[in-house]
Amino acid sequence: MFDPVRLLETKKVGLPHPAADIRALVDGYVAGAVPDYQMSAWLMAVRLNGMDAAETLAYTDALLHSGINYSWDGLDRPVVDKHSSGGVGDKTSLVVVPLAAACGLAMPKISGRGLGLTGGTLDKLESIPGLQLDLDEAEFRAQIGRVGCAIVAQSDELVPADGLTYALREVTASTDSVPLIAASIMCKKLATGAGTIVLDVKCGSGAFMVDVAAARELATAMVGIGNGAGRTVRAFVTAMDAPLGTAVGHSLEVAEALATLRGEGPADLVELALTLVAALLRDSGLRPAPRAARELAEEMLRNGTAYARMEEMIAAQGGDLAAFDEAPTHAGKTRLVVEAPESGYIAAIDAEAVALTVRGLGGGRLTKIDAIDLGVGVVLARKPGQPVERGAPLAEVYAADDVAAENAAARLREAIRIRPEQPAATPLVLEQLGGALQ
Amino acid sequence: MFDPVRLLETKKVGLPHPAADIRALVDGYVAGAVPDYQMSAWLMAVRLNGMDAAETLAYTDALLHSGINYSWDGLDRPVVDKHSSGGVGDKTSLVVVPLAAACGLAMPKISGRGLGLTGGTLDKLESIPGLQLDLDEAEFRAQIGRVGCAIVAQSDELVPADGLTYALREVTASTDSVPLIAASIMCKKLATGAGTIVLDVKCGSGAFMVDVAAARELATAMVGIGNGAGRTVRAFVTAMDAPLGTAVGHSLEVAEALATLRGEGPADLVELALTLVAALLRDSGLRPAPRAARELAEEMLRNGTAYARMEEMIAAQGGDLAAFDEAPTHAGKTRLVVEAPESGYIAAIDAEAVALTVRGLGGGRLTKIDAIDLGVGVVLARKPGQPVERGAPLAEVYAADDVAAENAAARLREAIRIRPEQPAATPLVLEQLGGALQ
Repeated sequence: MFDPVRLLETKKVGLPHPAADIRALVDGYVAGAVPDYQMSAWLMAVRLNGMDAAETLAYTDALLHSGINYSWDGLDRPVVDKHSSGGVGDKTSLVVVPLAAACGLAMPKISGRGLGLTGGTLDKLESIPGLQLDLDEAEFRAQIGRVGCAIVAQSDELVPADGLTYALREVTASTDSVPLIAASIMCKKLATGAGTIVLDVKCGSGAFMVDVAAARELATAMVGIGNGAGRTVRAFVTAMDAPLGTAVGHSLEVAEALATLRGEGPADLVELALTLVAALLRDSGLRPAPRAARELAEEMLRNGTAYARMEEMIAAQGGDLAAFDEAPTHAGKTRLVVEAPESGYIAAIDAEAVALTVRGLGGGRLTKIDAIDLGVGVVLARKPGQPVERGAPLAEVYAADDVAAENAAARLREAIRIRPEQPAATPLVLEQLGGALQ
Repeated sequence: MFDPVRLLETKKVGLPHPAADIRALVDGYVAGAVPDYQMSAWLMAVRLNGMDAAETLAYTDALLHSGINYSWDGLDRPVVDKHSSGGVGDKTSLVVVPLAAACGLAMPKISGRGLGLTGGTLDKLESIPGLQLDLDEAEFRAQIGRVGCAIVAQSDELVPADGLTYALREVTASTDSVPLIAASIMCKKLATGAGTIVLDVKCGSGAFMVDVAAARELATAMVGIGNGAGRTVRAFVTAMDAPLGTAVGHSLEVAEALATLRGEGPADLVELALTLVAALLRDSGLRPAPRAARELAEEMLRNGTAYARMEEMIAAQGGDLAAFDEAPTHAGKTRLVVEAPESGYIAAIDAEAVALTVRGLGGGRLTKIDAIDLGVGVVLARKPGQPVERGAPLAEVYAADDVAAENAAARLREAIRIRPEQPAATPLVLEQLGGALQ
């Protein structure tokens, strides 16, 4: 018979668990047979003593099997998925999902609510009037077959064990464990049924992982889990010191993603989206050659197919894109241009400080039940490395009123550092690992 | 406001807690404001990352203040206490309590139920007909004033936080933490109100602490707590490889304690009792000189004062000593003499194996609700170092029936090792630390 105390004794002294014990623990926890106090002690022991790759895979598998698992047998296209570990101004999914579908991949994207400083993909999409994010399984499947992509909210039936353990980890200080983070992310990717997965692990002042070593460790753990579950996984460690693109804030980011799909995107966002989609094309086998994969993604962006796919997806989910284009939420806000206090080059834009500024404007949650103002935010006029003249625009603030705008402007003048000399350019992709065997 | 998650974050990364936070945690736990799952995660973090001396003292203090605390202002004698970390055949309290009282000390002994392989002091005393172990506070105080000693069961009002956390530790694999063990023991000693405390930390195959280093660590932690709380504490690390004395089993041990008080005790038990009582006499200031302290204890044992005090204590608590002497529980059992299979010297008697043998006879608990057979047990005929002839008695078994007796005899023949050469004598006291400043 399964004995949780014996399992705790094992992890406490640093010995690994057999897979069957981990499965029994998670199953027992979901069934209520293992109480919170034993699970929380185990999570703390894992936080302090770790889990090896086999244990992490077994734990992910146990989370995965607590709920429904999608399978896409019979679909005529490779099914792919993408995860970003979160960052400031990260609207990449809004570009990658329709672009991947335009390239011939199927991308059934299931997102959670934003837990970071500013909202997640779902929160951003809510600025499109009428857009339905809670599709039932039949609607979801039908849309993937018809349009090739969908972005929907995670239902309670998907990996319920993950939700339970995540809530417990939050109140028992065991969130910052690499194997637990990797398992929590990957169980959702595996449940979606994608055979090919691309991971974008952000690294820097605006990311959960501050240094490259930590980001690499998380990426390695996630690739290991995916490979162990028979999926092809490629991970990119990407820089997140400055915000991605120029817009930070919900409807502002949607507008920037739409502009990107129309060929008017900022260079870093375009590059990241092309990199991720090209990886999916290579690893899924649809375009195994790197150059051909990249060219297909570029072509679908350039010729409007990706934008058309975005229109189709939004329409299929009941969204009114014309209404958004005519009167996006941010259009009704107080606008204030932040001017450069001196001439020089943009040396750095502190991503975390920008995110905190937007949250201060009402564009992020302090607690899970806080409402978000979808229209507030910041649009950067300059990115790191660019020159600026004194008095020229540094950024534009969208705020609820003048006082909030002035406060945000003051914070932005601190967050955007100007120096006399041009800084060295930093690459977007710092490392990559995994992917299909050549 | 107190935030348990912040406390967990602190211990998780190995930083110490301020005393106020530990007090808030324990108070919150007792009040139900801190849930089991946060307490169990904290206990696991403490098990893995430890607590320093100041934290351990603060934790003990927090446990202490969860319940009533005795004070003995106005009593004309020093109030002392004794703790043994448990061992096989350890009936020392039954000798030390009346002996200390006979020497002029007050010893209000509060005991818990036995959690070890065989029962504790309370279980043993239940073999005396009529003996009342649940005295109310007024009865307890009156008896200490009149007789100078009492042995009573721990009430729910004494250190309730200790009972709650101990139960949680048992089901979350955090029992084996030196600061948690030290705090759990010492909070009870402090609550009793003793100014002078002697600790007997057993060490060896029959003890919780198997090696001297571990026993010393526990002893050091306990002395540190006691000193921090303003008490004088001396700790002895004593050998527990072979059972203490000759009797193992409840009524057999009571009979051996009574014999010891009458001047007919086995050498090791007599020596340990005299050592502990002499330490209490020195450290309490009643007989500061080591020789005078020892001589007083020896005299009170020899002249019958200690035995008379035992009679008074048992009578005061309603016990019928004459009935025990006439028909002790073990007298009605099946007796079997275990004979030596070969000639030689007793090289070792495995204390743990003897304890398991007695538990196998029904003289110990497998679960907390098991009933104990108070009459079964083992009396050793030889102790380590003594010669034995083939066919001479090694031990006597007291069992429920012949089959059980034969099984026990077979186990004892394994547990008692005979070698041709005489083994080196091992000292009873391996180390001592603490005590009153000279």
